[in-house]
Amino acid sequence: MTITITAFERSPDGGKGLARDSRVRWALEEVGQPYEVRLVSFRAMKEKAHLALHPFGQIPTYEEGDFALFETGAIVLHIAERYSGLLPDDANARARAISWMFAALNTVEPPILELVTARIFEADRPWSKDRLPLVMDRVRERLNQLSARLGDAEWLDGAFDAGDLMMASVLLRLRASGLLDEYPNLAAYVARGEARPAYQRAFAAQLAVNAR
Amino acid sequence: MTITITAFERSPDGGKGLARDSRVRWALEEVGQPYEVRLVSFRAMKEKAHLALHPFGQIPTYEEGDFALFETGAIVLHIAERYSGLLPDDANARARAISWMFAALNTVEPPILELVTARIFEADRPWSKDRLPLVMDRVRERLNQLSARLGDAEWLDGAFDAGDLMMASVLLRLRASGLLDEYPNLAAYVARGEARPAYQRAFAAQLAVNAR
Repeated sequence: MTITITAFERSPDGGKGLARDSRVRWALEEVGQPYEVRLVSFRAMKEKAHLALHPFGQIPTYEEGDFALFETGAIVLHIAERYSGLLPDDANARARAISWMFAALNTVEPPILELVTARIFEADRPWSKDRLPLVMDRVRERLNQLSARLGDAEWLDGAFDAGDLMMASVLLRLRASGLLDEYPNLAAYVARGEARPAYQRAFAAQLAVNAR
Repeated sequence: MTITITAFERSPDGGKGLARDSRVRWALEEVGQPYEVRLVSFRAMKEKAHLALHPFGQIPTYEEGDFALFETGAIVLHIAERYSGLLPDDANARARAISWMFAALNTVEPPILELVTARIFEADRPWSKDRLPLVMDRVRERLNQLSARLGDAEWLDGAFDAGDLMMASVLLRLRASGLLDEYPNLAAYVARGEARPAYQRAFAAQLAVNAR
């Protein structure tokens, strides 16, 4: 059965790998599953056909026959549970990997999204300069904890798994702010993620769409 | 095997049900599993013993023998997968329920967390009054989509499931802002969640801790 995901026809980041289809492409490359991509324009994302698939009018979505999913976290978890390569066999280690996936999306990403909003969508507001340090400190609070936990380990919990895939993807959003460089072990962790052949293939595939 | 979760010794909301252990208590009540609660002080949350269990020094955590989990989403998903009552049997419906769980945590909750921050932690900043409407509009963008999808249905996807538990829990955080009342169908949806006997038991249990 063919796996089809959706991605931006033209990504807001121009192909730097920050659009969320990158996370799904990476997961599919890690487990060695081929997939097709249906590109969606900004207009089409808000139209009925796409909203039936994704209630919030976003990408990515995942389809396999009549099986359909939305939300990056749910898609990556499905791929990790269905194919081998992204979750350990041991029940406890598996649970920790899933905990890290949720931590990436619900504990680490929210302050990072707030920072992205502050830097891009509120950049020209009168409060921008005074407020930005507060927002950056909220991100640092999480990074301090994450950096302390990672220490000099290669991955968050032994071998690379779906938790690392999600955490590295979330941290990638920080690179432009300079914040990641304040934490050499986290910067090296993200670089290790990017160096994986599966990431490289995923990145190249989404860049090819946006470089057309 | 006894299930033990952690909760605030003294919740910042004084027991209004917004602390995240409420979500886990609700899930355990829905599936009819007894549980014990270990209360953690703010100081203990940042100490080594608790950080070993939860790298970000938060509650709740979940322990069952030597099996341990952190992050509310991961815990609720584990409960839903392990015990019956929170996930449908049909694979497609099950996938949609999990998609809604992630949507609640990664698409709907981030702007709500930003609103909570704006209303509580930035209330006395000079930009507070001018900035608040922007933040509220970002929440409305999500609520518009969610409200359109829910329509006059009782739950997001047929019968009540873990997706509804998480979405209603996330929306509860909006009540104090008045935003929820702008969407009668969402307000009624949350009220249906709160009316469930399992929610009532969970709410009473966490209120009892904070009313001591």
